[in-house]
Amino acid sequence: MCELLGMSANVPTDICFSFTGLMQRGGRTGPHADGWGITFYEGKGFRTFKDPKPSCHSKIAELVQQYPIKSCAVISHIRQANRGGVCLENTHPFTRELWGRYWTFAHNGQLTGYENLEAGRFQSVGDTDSEIAFCWLMNQIDSKFPQPPEDWSQIFEVVAECCDELRKLGVYNMLLSDGEFVLTYCTNNLHWITRRAPFGKASLIDEDVTIDFQQETTPNDVVTVIATQPLTNDERWHKMATGEFAVFHYGELINKRVPDIPQDLPSSAS
Amino acid sequence: MCELLGMSANVPTDICFSFTGLMQRGGRTGPHADGWGITFYEGKGFRTFKDPKPSCHSKIAELVQQYPIKSCAVISHIRQANRGGVCLENTHPFTRELWGRYWTFAHNGQLTGYENLEAGRFQSVGDTDSEIAFCWLMNQIDSKFPQPPEDWSQIFEVVAECCDELRKLGVYNMLLSDGEFVLTYCTNNLHWITRRAPFGKASLIDEDVTIDFQQETTPNDVVTVIATQPLTNDERWHKMATGEFAVFHYGELINKRVPDIPQDLPSSAS
Repeated sequence: MCELLGMSANVPTDICFSFTGLMQRGGRTGPHADGWGITFYEGKGFRTFKDPKPSCHSKIAELVQQYPIKSCAVISHIRQANRGGVCLENTHPFTRELWGRYWTFAHNGQLTGYENLEAGRFQSVGDTDSEIAFCWLMNQIDSKFPQPPEDWSQIFEVVAECCDELRKLGVYNMLLSDGEFVLTYCTNNLHWITRRAPFGKASLIDEDVTIDFQQETTPNDVVTVIATQPLTNDERWHKMATGEFAVFHYGELINKRVPDIPQDLPSSAS
Repeated sequence: MCELLGMSANVPTDICFSFTGLMQRGGRTGPHADGWGITFYEGKGFRTFKDPKPSCHSKIAELVQQYPIKSCAVISHIRQANRGGVCLENTHPFTRELWGRYWTFAHNGQLTGYENLEAGRFQSVGDTDSEIAFCWLMNQIDSKFPQPPEDWSQIFEVVAECCDELRKLGVYNMLLSDGEFVLTYCTNNLHWITRRAPFGKASLIDEDVTIDFQQETTPNDVVTVIATQPLTNDERWHKMATGEFAVFHYGELINKRVPDIPQDLPSSAS
């Protein structure tokens, strides 16, 4: 499978601490050695660093870890390939333009019967189930909203319904962003945490690194990190339920759809 | 204005030498301090490094210079802003997907009356004349070829005609690639050189660096470099004429359309 990492923040924030934890799982503390990628939004623009090599040995991952790029929306992924060969075109995240915005997507899981998903004008370049699902999802949004609606909750509803459809095809954990919103969907493994004042300390699980967020932040900062598995061992992460959909906007949870049976229990991570 | 750098090669080749020359012009030996970017194709995939900061001071440009990424098609750009603010979404190259291929574009020049170019489904994210011209160009290709034609010379003809149209709006020097072909168009400043056996030595104009290509290549390598201005002072670069359009495919010039009055004189660069 793979691991996802996302961030939504109300001030441009670097993700070096969390990324340091994630990249260890790309071949060292985890088996996700088939490439990695990270997309940083800055305003309406974005930049993606990616490599089909393991993140734990990647010069480019080293740069991303050491060079603080500040962003309000980040999507990252480390890959353990199942569908599609190990090559750059199959390396997440994937990006397409719609409505003059760049949309970026990463997926953790495995789908079957995805080959016939109708993607319209959004054609897949690689041959992963993930990119095909992304193209189908973008086509669904585009078909229903040739122009962006004033009320974005309509879009969230459509995306959540599309995610339900994709979950019928297998395991579908997702991060999706247009640079402003970070949309998340959980089939089995997705956790998030919102950090705000009073800030404390946190220690990575995968690397001997502790950070004191109070030294790194101002009292108004709100930063949400979303990850397949918790990245720290001394904070409380929210575990998302099967079928749960959540939208973060500049750090705040603004839209949430839980399945009928509540399963949203915080994971014990202390 | 800006400067362009492109490469087309028959074997995956790094562009560290040429890029080292170009990046000096991004704030040191040249005034192009408003950002830079470079796109490397690897198979059908690509990766873009970009920064709205001057390339001569950029940590990311330093990585690209030192870390040899091997590619058969590269598009690069350093920017001196005229239309559109200095920010990531206005930083070239720009990429869009068409026919399940990623198309990447960079422009040197300045256009007027570009605001009304009809871009159809390819919407501009930033507000440069360049990106709007690119979206219009992609829309023209898409409108004329909903599917890629078997004979790609039909596409080249359409692109060349579109470039002629854009040149009516101002200065339009262009690099465009789908990862396989590198398409070029000249209004006033574009030069290229094809290096093949027997390889010799070359020295950068902008930095005290000399390379012996014989040490870096095999006898079958064919590598074309395209640049706004020659990057070396001891090789013969071809100067393209006003209105000239040329296509390179794995290093070889495969399609060329010169204006009625031949102006294709090699520049004296020794």
